[in-house]
Amino acid sequence: MNIFKEIGALQAHLKHARCSKKTIGFVPTMGALHPGHLSLIRASKAGNSLTLCSIYVNPTQFNNPADLAKYPRTMEADVAMLEGHGCDIVFAPENEEMYKGPIQLSFDFGKLDKILEGEFRPGHFSGVALVVSKLFNIVQPDKAYFGQKDYQQFKVIARLAEELKFNTKLECEPTVREQDGLAMSSRNKRLSATERKQGLILYDCLKQTRQRLMRGEKLMTLRGEMAATCLKQGVKMEYLALADTENFSLLENVVSPEHSILLIAAYVGEIRLIDNILLEEK
Amino acid sequence: MNIFKEIGALQAHLKHARCSKKTIGFVPTMGALHPGHLSLIRASKAGNSLTLCSIYVNPTQFNNPADLAKYPRTMEADVAMLEGHGCDIVFAPENEEMYKGPIQLSFDFGKLDKILEGEFRPGHFSGVALVVSKLFNIVQPDKAYFGQKDYQQFKVIARLAEELKFNTKLECEPTVREQDGLAMSSRNKRLSATERKQGLILYDCLKQTRQRLMRGEKLMTLRGEMAATCLKQGVKMEYLALADTENFSLLENVVSPEHSILLIAAYVGEIRLIDNILLEEK
Repeated sequence: MNIFKEIGALQAHLKHARCSKKTIGFVPTMGALHPGHLSLIRASKAGNSLTLCSIYVNPTQFNNPADLAKYPRTMEADVAMLEGHGCDIVFAPENEEMYKGPIQLSFDFGKLDKILEGEFRPGHFSGVALVVSKLFNIVQPDKAYFGQKDYQQFKVIARLAEELKFNTKLECEPTVREQDGLAMSSRNKRLSATERKQGLILYDCLKQTRQRLMRGEKLMTLRGEMAATCLKQGVKMEYLALADTENFSLLENVVSPEHSILLIAAYVGEIRLIDNILLEEK
Repeated sequence: MNIFKEIGALQAHLKHARCSKKTIGFVPTMGALHPGHLSLIRASKAGNSLTLCSIYVNPTQFNNPADLAKYPRTMEADVAMLEGHGCDIVFAPENEEMYKGPIQLSFDFGKLDKILEGEFRPGHFSGVALVVSKLFNIVQPDKAYFGQKDYQQFKVIARLAEELKFNTKLECEPTVREQDGLAMSSRNKRLSATERKQGLILYDCLKQTRQRLMRGEKLMTLRGEMAATCLKQGVKMEYLALADTENFSLLENVVSPEHSILLIAAYVGEIRLIDNILLEEK
């Protein structure tokens, strides 16, 4: 496995590979890898001749400085895990390699970055778009792999790739869960034992809401009920929302279940968790 | 000379060239070519194995719909001119190839796109950044060539390329002028014979202001005087400004002439013209 910290050396390596007709699969991460990331590595290996994983905690996508400071950093374990799973190339740049001078550029995606995560994390998606643009231009991958857990992020990146004409096919892989249902996330490492159990309520709320929506109950009513259930267990729900998987507009009623996704965000102690499920699992 | 209208076919052609170790020089244009464009073609030919010129009137950078409708379109003459000057590849896409569905993404460059052209043409630089991002991702050039006449645009694109990590070196070539000093521009084609003569006042104002600034006169005073001179000849000045060539901040006094540029915009009849000169020509 080749590890690069510098853009120039990585690009020389990739140019050679590309001209030997090798396809490049790309898994962008912020490290603190877990089985969710490894499922993306597997998908990339199945679909490309080379798999590149980037490990970079991007400061511009953190709206909350405490969250950035406490974001888990486990580089050695990450590298060992990637090596063990047959990843070919790791790109792990320092901040100075990714950002030169003060940042002047920001992105606006209209409605798409104003709702849900965009509403509760102002500037988050502009930071995501900025670092993904950089990484796509550096790596120029044939395919790139993202997890469904960050579904709105996937929609933002898909929009970015279309509008900027990135020559990269995007793949969204199903969320990987712990045995008890908690969606895997690097932030789970920061949960105490009690919080770890409290965190289960997000997936429970999603499943219950889905079932009752399909029976004809109103999202508005269910939202209040779920927020109360969360609060009783000490979990503060930020949103419980239904969206169209195509254009990501918010819905209050189920119109076509096959194009609908249910999304939740909540604070468990100081840790903010998100999760989602499709109304009709594929 | 190869002419492409489709992204896919162009990219296949370029990939082959790139892997045969050919470097690609890129001259993005909106057509209506004149000797200013041809100087960029010459610079590209001198510095690269292949020269690609794009001809595309980008709708998203026109804040004024009448300006877009009346922008000169001279495709046949353009192609003949490029062929005659040894251009290797032309990319001339239709709107549907460049923009799919409604545009949701816009760029914000902070101060850089709020002053001068950014102030008088709201949304202009976001449209420029959008189309240049698309073109850079489609062409992936080694070098790209721009004219000094659109100096603020060059600064915006340089910022874009740095922030998004485009792997393209940008070159700014001196403004080409008519014999009497008028900066060459596709919009000059739309000037009447009288307006054509009136247009000379932009370059005259720049030269006079430069000379008197260097003698210690105040920009503020000169600005009023030049606006009055313009108006007497029926020309409406929008701005006369001094900027730092490095960070493009506006200046009211000459600090370091070697890093200063004087810029002007004015309406001659319905046609908006711009021009600029360095305080110290290289």
